[in-house]
Amino acid sequence: MKLIIEKDYESMSHTAANLLLAEMLKPTRVNLSVTAGNTPKRMYELLIPQVKGKAHFSNVHYYNFDEIPVLDDEGYGITMGNLNKDFFKPAGISPDQLHVLDDANYLTHDERLKSAGGLDLILMGIGSDGHFCGNLPGTTSFHDMTVKAYMTDELRAIFLKEVGGDESKVPDYWVTMGPKSVMQSKKLVMFANGKSKAEMIKKAFYGPVTPDVPASILQMHPNLTLLLDKDAASLL
Amino acid sequence: MKLIIEKDYESMSHTAANLLLAEMLKPTRVNLSVTAGNTPKRMYELLIPQVKGKAHFSNVHYYNFDEIPVLDDEGYGITMGNLNKDFFKPAGISPDQLHVLDDANYLTHDERLKSAGGLDLILMGIGSDGHFCGNLPGTTSFHDMTVKAYMTDELRAIFLKEVGGDESKVPDYWVTMGPKSVMQSKKLVMFANGKSKAEMIKKAFYGPVTPDVPASILQMHPNLTLLLDKDAASLL
Amino acid sequence: MKLIIEKDYESMSHTAANLLLAEMLKPTRVNLSVTAGNTPKRMYELLIPQVKGKAHFSNVHYYNFDEIPVLDDEGYGITMGNLNKDFFKPAGISPDQLHVLDDANYLTHDERLKSAGGLDLILMGIGSDGHFCGNLPGTTSFHDMTVKAYMTDELRAIFLKEVGGDESKVPDYWVTMGPKSVMQSKKLVMFANGKSKAEMIKKAFYGPVTPDVPASILQMHPNLTLLLDKDAASLL
Amino acid sequence: MKLIIEKDYESMSHTAANLLLAEMLKPTRVNLSVTAGNTPKRMYELLIPQVKGKAHFSNVHYYNFDEIPVLDDEGYGITMGNLNKDFFKPAGISPDQLHVLDDANYLTHDERLKSAGGLDLILMGIGSDGHFCGNLPGTTSFHDMTVKAYMTDELRAIFLKEVGGDESKVPDYWVTMGPKSVMQSKKLVMFANGKSKAEMIKKAFYGPVTPDVPASILQMHPNLTLLLDKDAASLL
Repeated sequence: MKLIIEKDYESMSHTAANLLLAEMLKPTRVNLSVTAGNTPKRMYELLIPQVKGKAHFSNVHYYNFDEIPVLDDEGYGITMGNLNKDFFKPAGISPDQLHVLDDANYLTHDERLKSAGGLDLILMGIGSDGHFCGNLPGTTSFHDMTVKAYMTDELRAIFLKEVGGDESKVPDYWVTMGPKSVMQSKKLVMFANGKSKAEMIKKAFYGPVTPDVPASILQMHPNLTLLLDKDAASLL
Repeated sequence: MKLIIEKDYESMSHTAANLLLAEMLKPTRVNLSVTAGNTPKRMYELLIPQVKGKAHFSNVHYYNFDEIPVLDDEGYGITMGNLNKDFFKPAGISPDQLHVLDDANYLTHDERLKSAGGLDLILMGIGSDGHFCGNLPGTTSFHDMTVKAYMTDELRAIFLKEVGGDESKVPDYWVTMGPKSVMQSKKLVMFANGKSKAEMIKKAFYGPVTPDVPASILQMHPNLTLLLDKDAASLL
Repeated sequence: MKLIIEKDYESMSHTAANLLLAEMLKPTRVNLSVTAGNTPKRMYELLIPQVKGKAHFSNVHYYNFDEIPVLDDEGYGITMGNLNKDFFKPAGISPDQLHVLDDANYLTHDERLKSAGGLDLILMGIGSDGHFCGNLPGTTSFHDMTVKAYMTDELRAIFLKEVGGDESKVPDYWVTMGPKSVMQSKKLVMFANGKSKAEMIKKAFYGPVTPDVPASILQMHPNLTLLLDKDAASLL
Repeated sequence: MKLIIEKDYESMSHTAANLLLAEMLKPTRVNLSVTAGNTPKRMYELLIPQVKGKAHFSNVHYYNFDEIPVLDDEGYGITMGNLNKDFFKPAGISPDQLHVLDDANYLTHDERLKSAGGLDLILMGIGSDGHFCGNLPGTTSFHDMTVKAYMTDELRAIFLKEVGGDESKVPDYWVTMGPKSVMQSKKLVMFANGKSKAEMIKKAFYGPVTPDVPASILQMHPNLTLLLDKDAASLL
């Protein structure tokens, strides 16, 4: 595990952008799976002007690693909808570089990845419950490849908040690359910022490997980079 | 995971030898950790004439991945003693290509490996109890790097048999690369032959990841080859 | 450059087979370009039983690197015809693992290779005139990708012998990966045996880089293995 | 060859910095050889704040690829003196990450590189005479490893200008990684900006391989990135 500690969110976002650019600049096809959400927002702002309109990035292919089947106006789920909004559209990524994982095709996702040469890098965040991608505690197992995961009562309460309390927008399930599928990637990058993540970072990457902390399995990967700001690293 | 099924022990041994030669023929320094015991005996017989006296293999460095501190006449433990006898001596490997792990230096083993560029490949067998290297059920944890592991009453009985019933030769502990240390290798090869391994192969590589079956963690490695004869693969 | 010297043709053939198996055993798609002719005959004999009927080699794709458009009964040129006869057919390689280069498709050969991820390894012999693949002195230039090369009077005499003196079988041209196309491969292996090659081996790999000795450019490749028997290495 | 065209010097400098960071962020030891001179000035300005004081870059080792033995006050030649001033000192690179090539140790430079695992990347500029590193036309040969190169009358005039007309500062020779030594690097990056480079870029990378244009050999490397601004690419 390579540990990188940056002084703040801005510096962490710069280094996260650099880690992605490092892969993207390879001369051959590159397969990336990148996270949506709040953590990457500044990173995507930094990447957009570096990527937009650059022909030499046409070798880069993007995959989402999970999807919540609550569709937006264009028919995309929450993850892909956010990636479109925060990065793919403003960066002008061509549709033929985008590879959607959704509940219609998740059963063939691992096979598609394999025949495309496998993922080169997955960039992930971590939840304060220890989840990564859609691997929430109690919903998937370490040996799962890409699977459908089902809502628990506990999780339903959390989702309700995310969709503004609208019950009709809470799905019964989502799809996600399971831990084993994620671990097949050549490289993993986990990034986190803020004091609220410090406890979980310590548990997941410096404690025992346990299903109670799904992200704890990631410490077993032979090419893992853990990128933190000082706050997230404050308990190490 | 790449699955290779060969028709018998002889064919499996040829392919195991090829997998090692594949690494050894690289132009730069190569770091290998190879297993002692019964499974590799034929493989070493096949390798010896291909390796002996060949100057172009001087780039290959060998590490043992565990050691039982019951010393032979030359001061080596059981693992290194067997490796010397079955491969290193008859193949004429130069002492400066051999890197001993023992109970005097195990605490710095991971640091030594790292500064040598890390292991390129570990070749391991599996026990019918699901152990790999010195990771016997209940003696190490998934997140362990190289550690000292302590004898349990149950294991003491097994060791007693291995040393011919001589209590003075049963150690209180051994040292081993723990699961996390093993998983840092760029490649892993697990090989097994015979019907007696079939049940455990199925459990470890096609079942859940659990500390009860230490080898089950290996299925999470992004570059794992599982090499079996037909008997060991008979339940897949 | 990694130099390997084996005692005789038999040992050289074993190591050449191992160098190919080393690539073939990778878990992902592997693209190989292998030579026809006399040098590899024993190597193919050794490979056939190791490859035939092995499902775990279905990831290996084969390309010929040159072709002389004198067709056999099945419509293949001399190179592909010989590869079929000496290796692909007796080894039972599936047609969808074979990728023919011929004078109908040579203009798109480099693009096809690129979109397949590029060649992982090219195994070549050397001519006593310093040629490699179809790059005979005076017929191609170092900066050529895959091209059509035209017969000179001098070469016509040599070809005549190869086709048993039958003028109708001497082509006006052939197609070949040019030096620049060959140099794009991730690895190169050049093998040679016999005293008749010793002078040229010395010139090509230990002398100046010059178009008069086409193979002399290969010494510039960052991952080149030169595999010789003692006779071919006798002037080094 | 991967071709990257950026709109101006500023964009080119950003991408050059990214290409270096891409290597530097690897988890294991990284060996870089970077150019001094005018082309990289802005790139180093961009890199300094990203590198300074970052513990996670302690795995990066720097080598100069040529040296002119005209010493500064601290005993460094012109190349290392400029690298110190423009990058190593302001970025706070630790002395144990710096590996000096000079006329006292050039004969063992290739051996040192090899035992350190080889160079991962060389970043070079190109001269309007087609030179790269210290390989000026007529002073080194394609098959040279690291060598001493001797001044010609023609070159003496150019050097005189660089040292402000002071004859005492014009050396009789310099040392440089020769073309073959440079080609051993795993990756090569050539960057250039400005209309004055356009003609030479076209000649070196889209024309024949010839000793008259030393940089023309670089097009043969299997992992070459050519990074240009629009002006330098204006004749492609």
